[in-house]
Amino acid sequence: MNQIHLSANQFVIEASAAESIAESLNLPSVLHLLPHLVHSAQALARPPISNFNVGAVGLGSDGRVFVGVNLEFPGLPLHHSVHAEQFLLTNLAVHRCRRLLSFAVSSAPCGHCRQFLQELRHSSSVQILVIDEENCAQNIDHVENRKPLSKFLPNPFGPHDLLDHECPLLLDQHDNRLDLLPPNTVNSVNLSNGNDENFSKLANGNCGKYEKSEDLLRESALEAANNAHAPYSGCPSGVALMDSEGNVYKGSYTESAAYNPSLGPVQAALIAYVASGGGGYESIVAAALVEKEGAKVRQEDTARLVLKAVSPKCDFRVFYCHSG
Amino acid sequence: MNQIHLSANQFVIEASAAESIAESLNLPSVLHLLPHLVHSAQALARPPISNFNVGAVGLGSDGRVFVGVNLEFPGLPLHHSVHAEQFLLTNLAVHRCRRLLSFAVSSAPCGHCRQFLQELRHSSSVQILVIDEENCAQNIDHVENRKPLSKFLPNPFGPHDLLDHECPLLLDQHDNRLDLLPPNTVNSVNLSNGNDENFSKLANGNCGKYEKSEDLLRESALEAANNAHAPYSGCPSGVALMDSEGNVYKGSYTESAAYNPSLGPVQAALIAYVASGGGGYESIVAAALVEKEGAKVRQEDTARLVLKAVSPKCDFRVFYCHSG
Ligand SMILES: [Zn+2]
Ligand SMILES: [Zn+2]
Repeated sequence: MNQIHLSANQFVIEASAAESIAESLNLPSVLHLLPHLVHSAQALARPPISNFNVGAVGLGSDGRVFVGVNLEFPGLPLHHSVHAEQFLLTNLAVHRCRRLLSFAVSSAPCGHCRQFLQELRHSSSVQILVIDEENCAQNIDHVENRKPLSKFLPNPFGPHDLLDHECPLLLDQHDNRLDLLPPNTVNSVNLSNGNDENFSKLANGNCGKYEKSEDLLRESALEAANNAHAPYSGCPSGVALMDSEGNVYKGSYTESAAYNPSLGPVQAALIAYVASGGGGYESIVAAALVEKEGAKVRQEDTARLVLKAVSPKCDFRVFYCHSG
Repeated sequence: MNQIHLSANQFVIEASAAESIAESLNLPSVLHLLPHLVHSAQALARPPISNFNVGAVGLGSDGRVFVGVNLEFPGLPLHHSVHAEQFLLTNLAVHRCRRLLSFAVSSAPCGHCRQFLQELRHSSSVQILVIDEENCAQNIDHVENRKPLSKFLPNPFGPHDLLDHECPLLLDQHDNRLDLLPPNTVNSVNLSNGNDENFSKLANGNCGKYEKSEDLLRESALEAANNAHAPYSGCPSGVALMDSEGNVYKGSYTESAAYNPSLGPVQAALIAYVASGGGGYESIVAAALVEKEGAKVRQEDTARLVLKAVSPKCDFRVFYCHSG
């Protein structure tokens, strides 16, 4: 078995680079490369509760290779955990890859993930290769052992039970046509701790056309909310995180037809942070959430709770939006 | 198709009663009765977000019939939802039924539930009959159409991947041997809103041997924590709710090997409340949580958030425990 080592910030491999690596290993295709990357993907996982590292490596329809790992957050209930397969799909979404063809993963996908994967348009045909310890040596060179998702979750409950066929699914383009409410609307801005220090420190950071970090964060969170996949509740939301260097990471809320496996907007933004090579979460100094005021599925309090656990000093602001 | 109507508080049918009903319908066994109860079970669901009522009706190894329904909580993220299958298993646990043989359910179980069901000792052999609209008339009289859980989640990830064989599973007897920390320990009591009114109003309620409602609630929450299924994190917790008449409802935290499908202790207690025929959640006036201080999987803030959403005036207190 050839060990391929991913560097700490290598969560996407460009198509040409993936082909070169496959060739250098005398593998017939990039598809055959996926299982060889699983072990090094596992090393990028951050599961401080279970210490059970999971890595998933997927092939997009554009030839790029994407990595997913599991994340766990001490001090919070376990429903806040991110599974490697959820990370993988979010990584594809962040990089605008519209279809996942196949992935290899270090342990059998759990039911929660098999359900989350149903949100893909061609979900039943996604090919999965499980590289567990028992059959590692056998599986890694036999991609024929992969099976479609339909074999992992037969007779599924999914989007087709609830949505029209035209409705955009997880990796499809979304535009929720949300606009921010005017900033002077009562309650449209929530200063969680009244501390402007983080924002002003960043005022001369990588803000580009924005005068202030707050403007950049707010607009980024709005963009994330506009890309959210929330067809079941009609309550899209988005989060933007800013690190101490002024870099911004966007996360779009992603719903599951089965409700509970839905991925929160803070989790989605943390995936973007980790996938960009971000270090400890304490480097996240500011965050913004955009959602509808009084939404039936409301993220505000939960987003604050998660941020407090992962980066206690992070400044958190909420902006309300409405359908434009 | 014979319609059997369940009354609002009929979430358990005693074995003899179930046999009588089956006989009166000329059904060969109680097993054949399950699908006939699914429709009326659906009517007991409380899904104000999706309006998608799910009912599950299961047969315990002691001949009793148990009902499960889905619960949704507006104003909270969707991971707080309770699925009918989770309600069903919790209902068996509350009533000390040690094994689920079979259940009929109104729609295909989602992946989240197929995963949660893995926590049962004989999970792979649990028989499931899906009574969806398409094949309702056909299925209801053909219990042969039921299939074991192993057909719904082949090649599962589950407790066997992480636990010893001797470790108690979901419906097995649990004793986490927790003791409360002395009440005068710093932070051992958290008065969430400093409002003693609810407790004093209840002081002469159904408290039995306890002098005060608070003592009863605290001891009930401790009992629930001692019955919790938390083998993966080692962070058991329990909640007790009290209604305006002084009745107490206990909920034990229930973990899933896959983490995210875990059922929180407030949800478990709300299941006990609904299964006892409880009405609107606003009748819940006081709540207590018992968990370990500084636990890696910590419920306090989330329990407060959920209670605030379901019963805003509920008094909430936290008591810390340690392993005895
Ligand atoms: Zn998973
Ligand atoms: Zn379910």
